[in-house]
Amino acid sequence: MQAAGDSFRSVPGHQPWEPYLDVPTEAYPEMSWCGWGDPAQVPSLPERVRGLLADALGVREPAGRRASLEEIELPPARLPGVVSSELRGVVGQEHAREDREARIRHTRGRSTLDLLRMRAGDALDAPDLVVMPGSHQEVLALLAICSRRRVAVVPFGGGTSVVGGLQARSQGYAGLVSLDLRRMSKLLELDEQSRLAVLEPGLRGPQAEALLGRRGYTLGHFPQSYEFATLGGFAATRSSGQASAGYGRFDELVLALRVATPVGELTVGRAPKSAAGPDLRQLFLGSEGALGVITALTLQLRPAPAARVYDGWRLPSFAEGLAALRHLSQDVALASVLRLSDEAETAVNLSRPDDPGAGPGGGGCLAIVGYEGAAEHVTARRELVSSTLARAGAEPVPEAGEQWARDRFRGPYLRDALLDAGALVETLETVAFWSSIPPLYDAVIGALRESLSALGTPPLVLCHVSHVYPSGASLYFTVACAQLDDAQGQWRAAKAAASDAILAAGGSITHHHGVGGDHRAWYRREVGELSVQTLSAVKATVDPEGVLSPGILIT
Amino acid sequence: MQAAGDSFRSVPGHQPWEPYLDVPTEAYPEMSWCGWGDPAQVPSLPERVRGLLADALGVREPAGRRASLEEIELPPARLPGVVSSELRGVVGQEHAREDREARIRHTRGRSTLDLLRMRAGDALDAPDLVVMPGSHQEVLALLAICSRRRVAVVPFGGGTSVVGGLQARSQGYAGLVSLDLRRMSKLLELDEQSRLAVLEPGLRGPQAEALLGRRGYTLGHFPQSYEFATLGGFAATRSSGQASAGYGRFDELVLALRVATPVGELTVGRAPKSAAGPDLRQLFLGSEGALGVITALTLQLRPAPAARVYDGWRLPSFAEGLAALRHLSQDVALASVLRLSDEAETAVNLSRPDDPGAGPGGGGCLAIVGYEGAAEHVTARRELVSSTLARAGAEPVPEAGEQWARDRFRGPYLRDALLDAGALVETLETVAFWSSIPPLYDAVIGALRESLSALGTPPLVLCHVSHVYPSGASLYFTVACAQLDDAQGQWRAAKAAASDAILAAGGSITHHHGVGGDHRAWYRREVGELSVQTLSAVKATVDPEGVLSPGILIT
Repeated sequence: MQAAGDSFRSVPGHQPWEPYLDVPTEAYPEMSWCGWGDPAQVPSLPERVRGLLADALGVREPAGRRASLEEIELPPARLPGVVSSELRGVVGQEHAREDREARIRHTRGRSTLDLLRMRAGDALDAPDLVVMPGSHQEVLALLAICSRRRVAVVPFGGGTSVVGGLQARSQGYAGLVSLDLRRMSKLLELDEQSRLAVLEPGLRGPQAEALLGRRGYTLGHFPQSYEFATLGGFAATRSSGQASAGYGRFDELVLALRVATPVGELTVGRAPKSAAGPDLRQLFLGSEGALGVITALTLQLRPAPAARVYDGWRLPSFAEGLAALRHLSQDVALASVLRLSDEAETAVNLSRPDDPGAGPGGGGCLAIVGYEGAAEHVTARRELVSSTLARAGAEPVPEAGEQWARDRFRGPYLRDALLDAGALVETLETVAFWSSIPPLYDAVIGALRESLSALGTPPLVLCHVSHVYPSGASLYFTVACAQLDDAQGQWRAAKAAASDAILAAGGSITHHHGVGGDHRAWYRREVGELSVQTLSAVKATVDPEGVLSPGILIT
Repeated sequence: MQAAGDSFRSVPGHQPWEPYLDVPTEAYPEMSWCGWGDPAQVPSLPERVRGLLADALGVREPAGRRASLEEIELPPARLPGVVSSELRGVVGQEHAREDREARIRHTRGRSTLDLLRMRAGDALDAPDLVVMPGSHQEVLALLAICSRRRVAVVPFGGGTSVVGGLQARSQGYAGLVSLDLRRMSKLLELDEQSRLAVLEPGLRGPQAEALLGRRGYTLGHFPQSYEFATLGGFAATRSSGQASAGYGRFDELVLALRVATPVGELTVGRAPKSAAGPDLRQLFLGSEGALGVITALTLQLRPAPAARVYDGWRLPSFAEGLAALRHLSQDVALASVLRLSDEAETAVNLSRPDDPGAGPGGGGCLAIVGYEGAAEHVTARRELVSSTLARAGAEPVPEAGEQWARDRFRGPYLRDALLDAGALVETLETVAFWSSIPPLYDAVIGALRESLSALGTPPLVLCHVSHVYPSGASLYFTVACAQLDDAQGQWRAAKAAASDAILAAGGSITHHHGVGGDHRAWYRREVGELSVQTLSAVKATVDPEGVLSPGILIT
C-alpha cells in the first residue's frame, strides 16, 4: 500500500485538485450505439424461452429489422461555425467531434424508449458537437462560452441513463453540445489516513476500482450499470449500488464535490460532517447536470474486502421475506447485499439472464444475502444472519448466490435479445417506508397489468426488493409483454399508469434511476411547486442563461 | 408497546400531520434568564479551585455584581399596535407576551458573550413581542403577517444557542418577534413498522424521550444541551449528540420535515432514500431559522437500549489516542460513544464539573467509550473494542465512564460559577479530515494562547475529540483565563484568532454549534461567495421580504 496521500495536501484540508497520482491503464470500450454495452455479450434466446414468450405473452413475431448506423436519421448540425471554433479552441481540435457516429453515440441514453427510437432510425435529439474536456478549467471555459452563446450543454458520462437524463431540449438554443467527460479520469489525490480519494468524474466503475484496488481500497459501489457508468454520473443521479446495505449509497460516499458552472466554480464539502449551514453537497448530488458539471469527487474509501460471500435463501412467501429483510435491516444490519425476489420473479429466475426460466424451482421467494469484508468478520456476520433467516423459515438455495454474483451486471443484455424477439421489456423502481410497501407493491403491479391489458398485451410483472433501510425499502419491477407496432406509445401509457400509482401509494418516483426528462412531471408532483421554485432559483444563480441540461430535472 | 402508527396513515407514505397521539405530561422548566439551565444547579467552587484560578490564570477578584432582572436595560417595544393585534389574533391573547420578563427571557442565547452582556444589564436585542403558536397553520399565518408587515421574526426553541443564533437584526424592520415553539410539542404519528415518529419541533430532548420511551423507543440524541434544547433546534442547527458514533447525528435521523415559510409550506423527504433530485431536507437542516420554521419532524427511531455501559480508558498520549479512535471508527465501528481528552483536559478532568481538577491522576489521555443496545450485543461489542484498546496500549480507568455519564449535561453550570469567580470561560469546536487533525489542534491552541497572552491573560486551553467518523473527527476546545474589564472584547479577539486558525488549517468553522451570527463571516469564507449567493436565492424564494432571522447564517 502506498502512502502517497498527504504530500498532495500542502494546506491540510484544502484540495489542490490539479496534480494527479495515477490514470487508468485499462481500455475504455465503447458502448453499443443502439443497445446495452458490448454487443457481443447479448445472449441468444433458447428455444424454450421463445416458446414461453409466445405462450405466456402472446409474442407472435420478431421485431422489425433494426436500422443500421448508416440509416439513422440525423438532423443537420446547426451550431454556428464561430461557436464551434470557440469550443474546439478550448479542448483542442482532436478532442471535438461532429461526425455522424460521434453524434449518434451521444444521443439519449439506454432506456427501452431510447432503444426503440434508435432501432427505428431516429436520432433527432443528437447533439451538434461532442467536446471532450481534459480538465476542470476546460469545463469552466466551455460552460462560459455555452452560456454566452446560449448553447445548451449536457454532460455525458457513461451514457447509461434510463430516464431520459441525456435528452436535453435544444429548441430555443443556438445548438446542443455533449460534454463527454471520458478524458477526466485521473486519481487526483489519496489520503490514506482519512481513507479518502479525490477522483475525476469520467472514471468508469471498473477503472476507479482498478486505480483504488491496486492500493488496497474499494468504493464498494456496484450498480447494474457499473461496467459503463461513471463516477460523475453516480453522483449526479444519486446512484445506489447492489451492495448498498454494506457500503451505503453513492451519495453517502461523497465527502466533497468540485462543481463547474457557467458563472464559476463551487467546492462543496470540507470535513466529514459540519454544522456550517445547509449541506450544499446535497444540492449537486441528484442535480443531473442541471446545476453544474461535477469535475472532481472526494470519496470515502473502504479497505478492499478480503472475502466476498453471496448466499441464496428461499423464503416461503414475499410477505414473510419482507418481514425477514425488515428485521435484518432494523435489528441486525450485518449484510452487504440484501435482495428479495417476489414469487413471480423467483419462478422466472432473472438471476440467469442467459437462460431465464431455468430457475431453482420449488416456489417461494429467492433472497440473495451477501457479505464483504475481512474474512473473520464475514464468517461471523454470515453465521448471525443465517441463523436469523433460518428462524424466519428460510432455506438455503445452493449456488443461487454465486450465480447472482456472476451474472449481476448481465441483465440489460437480455433486454436487447427480448426486444429483438418482439417482446417489450423495461424496468422501473420506487422506494417507500416499510408500512407503505405492501400497498405500493399491489398498486404498481395492478397499474401495469391494467394499462397493458387494456392495450391487448397483458404483461408479466416481476418484482424484487433491491435495497433495504431501517425505515423502508425499494421495489424494482420488470415488465414484459408483446410489442405492439407503436411500442413507444404502448410503454408510455404503462409507465404513466405505474408512475401515477407510485405517487398515490406514497412511493418516491425514483429510488436510484433519477428524474431525467421522463420523470419530470411526477417529480414536480412529488416535491411540490415551492420546492421546484426553490431549485429554479438555485439554477438561475449558477446558470443564468439556463443552458445546463434544459428539459432535465426541473426545466 | 402500542401498535398505533399505521392508523394515522390513511394514504400510505403521506403524513397527515395534524391528528396527534400524545402530548408531554412533564413540566417545562424555565431556563435561567442570565445563565445556564436551572440556577439551583450551579456548583459553588471548592477553595482548591479558587486557588488554581488565582495561581494558574491570575484571576485576582470576582466578577462585578450581576444586574438583577429589574435593572436590565430594555428598549421600548416598537411593534405597531395594529401589527401586534394581528399577531395576537392568530395565537390568542393568552399566547402572546410583551411583558418585560418574557422579552428578556427571549433575548439572545447562552454563549459566554450572551451571558456577559446580560450580566452587564444589556437586553438591547430583546424582541418586541413573544408569540407562542400552537400549530403549523398558526405558524404559517404568523409568518405571512410578519412578511406583509416587514417584521423580523426569529424562531425560539430551547434558547440554548451559543453562536448568536437568536440575535436577529431588527434594524430596517418594523420590529422583532420571537416565535416560541413550546406549545408545539405533540407526538403526531408513530409508525412502528417503519420505526419512525412524526413529532413537533417544540419538544425538548427529555420530553421527546419520555413520549417515545414509554413505547419502547429512543432517538438516541443526547447533546450537552439535551435537557433544554428542542427537536426543531436540533434539526435547524445540525446538532450532534454525545452518542453520535452509535445513533448518528441528528440530521441523519431526519426522514422528512414540514417547513412553514412566509410564502407557504414545503414537505421535504418522502421515503428512506430517493434519487428524485437534490435532497431538499439538507437545505432546511442547518438553515437556522433563515429559510423557514420547521413545524414537524419525521424521525428514525431505535429500540430503547436495554443496556448502557460507559468505560474510561487511559491512552499514553493524545497522538496514540487519536490513532486508536481512528482505528475504532474506520475498522471496528461498534461503540456508541467515543471521546478522547488531551493531556491538559485529562489533568483538569472536566468530567467532574462540581470539582474540576479532582481527576484520576496518572497523566496520559482519558477516553470515554460507551455502548448502548441489547444486552448481549453490548457485551460482545465491549469485548471487541476493549481488546482493541488494550492492544493500543490503553488501560482501564475505573469509574471514569460512569462519572462522565452522570455528569454529562452539567458542564455549562460550571461556566456560570467560573464567570462569577472572575474567570472568562468559553468553548469552541471544529471538524476536519483525520490528516488535518494534528496541525489543526496545534493551530487553534496556538491562536488562543497567542491572542489571549497578548492581552495579558494567558489562558488554559483544554481539548477533546467529541465525535469521530471514518474520514475525520471533531475537536472541542475549552478556554479559561482571567476576565478583563472588557471581557466581551477580550473574548471576541480570541475567538476571531481561533476562527482564522480553523479555516487556515482546513477545519470547518463549526461541527455542531452552528453558524448563527457569530460565525457568519467565517462561514462565508468557508463556503465561498457563490454558495452564499445560492442560499440567498433560495431565501429570496421562500422569504421574499427577508423577515426570517435577519443577520443569522447568511444575511
